[in-house]
Amino acid sequence: MKALQDKIRQDGIVLNEKVLKVDSFLNHMVDPQLMLEVGQEFVKRFEGLTFDKVLTLESSGIAPAIMTALTLQVPLIFARKHKSLTLQDDLYVETVYSFTKQVHNEITIARKFLAPGERVLIIDDFLAYGEATFGMARIIESAGATVSGIGIVIEKSFQEGALKLKDAGYRVESLARIGSLAGEKVTFL
Amino acid sequence: MKALQDKIRQDGIVLNEKVLKVDSFLNHMVDPQLMLEVGQEFVKRFEGLTFDKVLTLESSGIAPAIMTALTLQVPLIFARKHKSLTLQDDLYVETVYSFTKQVHNEITIARKFLAPGERVLIIDDFLAYGEATFGMARIIESAGATVSGIGIVIEKSFQEGALKLKDAGYRVESLARIGSLAGEKVTFL
Repeated sequence: MKALQDKIRQDGIVLNEKVLKVDSFLNHMVDPQLMLEVGQEFVKRFEGLTFDKVLTLESSGIAPAIMTALTLQVPLIFARKHKSLTLQDDLYVETVYSFTKQVHNEITIARKFLAPGERVLIIDDFLAYGEATFGMARIIESAGATVSGIGIVIEKSFQEGALKLKDAGYRVESLARIGSLAGEKVTFL
Repeated sequence: MKALQDKIRQDGIVLNEKVLKVDSFLNHMVDPQLMLEVGQEFVKRFEGLTFDKVLTLESSGIAPAIMTALTLQVPLIFARKHKSLTLQDDLYVETVYSFTKQVHNEITIARKFLAPGERVLIIDDFLAYGEATFGMARIIESAGATVSGIGIVIEKSFQEGALKLKDAGYRVESLARIGSLAGEKVTFL
């Protein structure tokens, strides 16, 4: 997606060979018009498929995911992140590891919001090792629902998440695929 | 706002005299079309004013706030919430108390995203005691920017936040004002 790649080139900050900072338009300050175009682009990429719900993870996933849900005219669910949690019967819980922050988080979704047979589109801002995405997929499947697609705003293709998700049989559409952050430069695939 | 009041009556769950649960359309599962209409209504209520940025607090404020920012065609900033934080020079930090969760949170905004003279619209999902809203206002003002308006999706008017904000000279526009949750029933003002 050209507008997104242009924005990343212009405003993204390469902190090191693994970390791209996009806090000026995606995960702290947010460009709402770009998010709308991101949402519309996801819907175009998955044209022909039917989705009952969009699922993302708080907080940075919410902006692109709600624009996708708005375009599809279906509800958005955002999974909650917790450091630790007492078990509650009414929640689906999965533990996921964040390589960036080096912590385990529990992500939760209220059981009442996922029903067997529903077709769910997962949207997230970043894909690196795929931990969060696999966690959301496990929750969807344990509810008897289906992961009908995965839409990623920025894929760090030099990390293993995208490959692992595709190997597991999921369809992944990433709007910007980064091959390398070497030399303080963003190189797209 | 009638569509919002209808949704609250239909899908809101009164847990007790102080707590209204709206996790089926606002703060866990989200109705994107209703959020768009909420954003458009805020812009209508503040017609004639100019805003440079919209500010909210993660996570539940993001959905209504990004639709407001989209309608205004200005950037959204979402403040981050932390349990505790080592002091960082590049961040504005304010401590706010959550009466609901009975914890102190630190809320932060990167200094580079607020400039002196900017006119900021604060948007939040709930207003109860006003702690989070006052925290955001203190950050805006310590940056030399101005709180030009405060837009609230659901105001619990029987708690003191709205009155305190108005006494402090802020203009508050709330789309649903709840006078009472007594008798397991939502009574609007």
